[in-house]
This record gives sequence, C-alpha cells and structure tokens, in this order.
Amino acid sequence: MPISTLAWIAADWGTTHLRLWLMDAAGTVLDRRMSDKGMGRLAPHQYEAVLLDLLGEDLPGQPTPVVICGMAGARQGWIEAPYAAVPCTVPGIDRATRAPTSDPRLAVYILPGLSQAQPADVMRGEETQIGGFLAGEPSFDGVLCLPGTHCKWAHISASEVVSFRTFMTGELFSLLGQQSVLRHSIGTGWDEAAFADAVTDTLSRPAGLGAELFSIRAAQLLHGQSTDVARARLSGLLIGLEMAAARPYWLGQEVVILGEDGLAKAYETAMKTQSAWCRRVPAEDTTLQGLKAAFAQLKATQ
Amino acid sequence: MPISTLAWIAADWGTTHLRLWLMDAAGTVLDRRMSDKGMGRLAPHQYEAVLLDLLGEDLPGQPTPVVICGMAGARQGWIEAPYAAVPCTVPGIDRATRAPTSDPRLAVYILPGLSQAQPADVMRGEETQIGGFLAGEPSFDGVLCLPGTHCKWAHISASEVVSFRTFMTGELFSLLGQQSVLRHSIGTGWDEAAFADAVTDTLSRPAGLGAELFSIRAAQLLHGQSTDVARARLSGLLIGLEMAAARPYWLGQEVVILGEDGLAKAYETAMKTQSAWCRRVPAEDTTLQGLKAAFAQLKATQ
Repeated sequence: MPISTLAWIAADWGTTHLRLWLMDAAGTVLDRRMSDKGMGRLAPHQYEAVLLDLLGEDLPGQPTPVVICGMAGARQGWIEAPYAAVPCTVPGIDRATRAPTSDPRLAVYILPGLSQAQPADVMRGEETQIGGFLAGEPSFDGVLCLPGTHCKWAHISASEVVSFRTFMTGELFSLLGQQSVLRHSIGTGWDEAAFADAVTDTLSRPAGLGAELFSIRAAQLLHGQSTDVARARLSGLLIGLEMAAARPYWLGQEVVILGEDGLAKAYETAMKTQSAWCRRVPAEDTTLQGLKAAFAQLKATQ
Repeated sequence: MPISTLAWIAADWGTTHLRLWLMDAAGTVLDRRMSDKGMGRLAPHQYEAVLLDLLGEDLPGQPTPVVICGMAGARQGWIEAPYAAVPCTVPGIDRATRAPTSDPRLAVYILPGLSQAQPADVMRGEETQIGGFLAGEPSFDGVLCLPGTHCKWAHISASEVVSFRTFMTGELFSLLGQQSVLRHSIGTGWDEAAFADAVTDTLSRPAGLGAELFSIRAAQLLHGQSTDVARARLSGLLIGLEMAAARPYWLGQEVVILGEDGLAKAYETAMKTQSAWCRRVPAEDTTLQGLKAAFAQLKATQ
C-alpha cells in the first residue's frame, strides 16, 4: 500500500551495496531499506527494477524524487553523472543527471562525483558525506579525513572543496593481510603500542615500507612476534605511509575525521603520535544529511 | 629400470613447485623432472611418496643422495631445517637436516635457509642460488639482487652473506594489478618511459606511493591513460620504493642482478635511471650450481 506521507527517497548506491531512506516532507526517516545489489552486480537496465523491488508497493501515484549518490553514477553504472571539477562547492541537484525510467512514479536524480585534474583523482559518494558534514558546520575551514577502503583527504575552504587525495590504504591492508604471505602471521587482535611505533617508522622513513612488510613475517618466524602485534604493525606501517604523503593536508590544519569505528580511531591515534590536532565526528548519518541538503535544493528550485 | 649412472638427485622444492635434476657422478644432468606438488600442498608424510612417484623406477639399489633446497625445509614443510644466521658462508651439506625415509634407496638432505635477527628477515632457496653464483665467481665482493615474488638483496663479502633484505614488490604488483580497484586500469603491455618516470617518482619521494597508486585509476578515468602505461607505472612505483629502501645495498656497490627475464631487465632499467652500476647474470642454472656445490662437499666429507 502506498505510503501517503512519502515525499522522496534518499539513496546511497555504492559498488557493493544500496541503502535507501524513505523520507517525508519534513525530513523524517519513515523507513530504511538495504540491498546487496551494488553497482558491481548490475547492468544499466537493471537499476530501475532493483528500486521497484524495494519500493514498488510503497510508491504513491505521483512521481517521487529519488536522489542518488555513489557509484550508480559511474560510467559503468546506471547512467554516467559527469564529475564536477574541484575547486567547487559540493555539487547539488542542479548538477544531477536524470536517469530515464519506465515507471512514471520514479523521478531519479544521480548526483555527480568530484574530479581533480592534477594530481589525477576522483571520488563518488564521499562528496555527499562532505556535503552532509558541511550542512552541520557550514563555516568549517580545514581538512576532512574520510577513512575507508579508499581513504579521502579533502581540503575545505570558503564552502568549497579546494583539493583532495585518495589513498588505497584500506584496500592494501585487506590484500596484504588476507591474501599475501603475511596472512600466515596476521591475527584479528590489536596492539596499540605496536601500531604507534609502526606509524612513526614509516612517517619518519617512508621508503622503509618495502622491507618492513616482509619483516612482519620474519619476526614471527624468528622471534615469535604475536599475530596481534603483526596486525597492528601492518596497519600502522600503511597508515604511517599515508600520513607521510598527506602531510600537507594535516600539518597545521584543523582536521576532522569522519567516523567512529576502529579505523577512524586508528587514524586519530596516528595523528596524535604527530601531535596533530584533530577531532572525530560521527559519520553514520553524513551521507543522509548530504542527500537531504541536495533534496532541499530541489525543493527550492521547484 | 634403475639408471646405473645415477649418482645423486638435486631438488629445488618450493611452495608451489618441485624441480628435480637426475645427476651422474661427473655432474652431468641425466634427466629433469617437474611437479606442481609444492610445499603448500603437502603434509610432512607425503613428501617421500612424491619423490618415489617421480623417481621410483630409476633409483638404484643403494642409497641415492637427494639434496634439497627451498620451502621443503620450512617448519610447515617435510622437516624443519633450521636457518643459518648471517653473517655466514652459504650453508653446505654439513648443516643439512636429514629427512627420515621408509625407502632405503633415498638419503635425503635438506639444506638450511638463512636468517637475520635484525632487521628480521629470512630466505629459503635463494641462499642456494647465491651459492651457485659464488661457485662461478668465488671472489665476488658486492651485492646480489634476486628479483622475484619476494626480491632479495644480499651483501656478499669475503665469501660470506653479510646481510640481506626481502621486498614483497612482486607480490604487491600481482595483488594490486590483479585484485585491487587498479585491475580495471592495468593491461598486459608496457611503456618504458612511464616505468622510468615512476621509478624516479617514488625514489625521490617514497611517501608519494600511497596517493600515486589511486592516481593510476583516476588518470585512466579522467585522462584516458593507456593500460600499458598504467601497468608500467604501477611496476615503476613499486620498484622505485624498493630501490629507495635498498639504497644502502646498491649505492656505490658492484651489483649483480640474477636473472634475464623481463623483471630482471626492469630492475636493471631502474638502477640505470640512478646511474647505478650493475650487470645481469643468467639465473637459470644458479640453483642447480648451488646444489652441485653442496653435493661436492658431501663427496669430500665421505
């Protein structure tokens, strides 16, 4: 049965997952839906059916706006939503790409990602998190750090994303910890001191990473290094290398780390080894806040 | 039917493969055998059966020495052959571990690997390549570079391995090129200029690796960078990082790169961007030469 108060749908459509929020006109979340039908599993013609499977019964008769961020707007996604080039404000619905649908009850808007020509870099989805954070702190001037599989650092000034860089630290940690020879030496635990030492090692001597990785294996074979120490050390070496390259982003800047999970805390610990000033801000709802900011703009233009 | 001139067996028993050489007393190769029954697939009690499958009919009645190097001597291999600690000469048969067999026609010797306490490092198999190289150039004083999945650099002086370091460069290249987000941007070709530029990039600024990796992906999306350039650039960034960390090994040293394949040539190119002096030496037979040197010692002690 259609939900009469359903005003619009917020959607975070990534590579592996889709998250939907059913919203009323006042910005209240009426319901949430999740699916593992991410961009990586879909051909362009399948996206509409995924939405209808999750929403069909609930949609009112009139067109309901669906505001999407993330990889659904990639070239291999539903329809390409061209990047907005930095420096720029977080792109709103006026720069969204409309995806055609057969069902007249859907009015789909896909938000663009951000691109940077030199050094070449791109993001899709994180710009909406940035927009969500800025909706709460519109006068923020500093650096946002968004930990994840691909950690993003973004310099924000005068409401614009000035520049950003992407680090594959999380993906490297997974590949090395689960699929390389190091997997035999890596546990599931943690050792805070080993993490901090490793951060300092690669921050002060980034080139060392190459040889320090295999030493994790050798230290277990020769000296019985624990698998907890090994896991923390691998993470610290990789985050330390990232911190070394991202130094212009955090040195002397106000840094906000988006997130409250273990990874966000690890970044905070790493920054504190360098006496860098930073704070953590919950990231759970920043994507939704960013989508709300985009939808508010749609209402304003109608 | 037993081979009457069979004097001993040389064996390179690695993680994924086993190579056997059937040798006569004069050091001539009578035959070769290959198997994919590497250490990674075998429990300790299965090793003897693998040898008998490959050799059984050919073995004479009296005990035939089988001289083995490689991962068969690891803790999780046939039987642990404890490491010899550097600095030391390449360990010969006097330091080998005897593996017990049920079949009296086999007399199995497993050669030790090398270990280094600080920085923690180990090798199994490469020490025999080093021994093979030194058999041909006994007065060599300098550095050996052994490219591979795990590249080894070893400092040789006065016939001893003084120190060594292991770099996971080859494994990182495979993981990133085949399993990370970069796999979409990496081809099978090569671009010599892109390789040399990338080597210089990480050699001069090792920390940059973190961000430069994702830029390979972004440069394809934004600027249409070719997949050949991407593959060469990934290799160059990783080898450049290794060269930065291995600088004490190659700077001002006589360096010999063991190998003639594309990877060995890439290392040579990388060194030449730094005007480092090096030469390549064919590596095909160095393991066999090392095993022959070990066997010669066995004959001398009998």
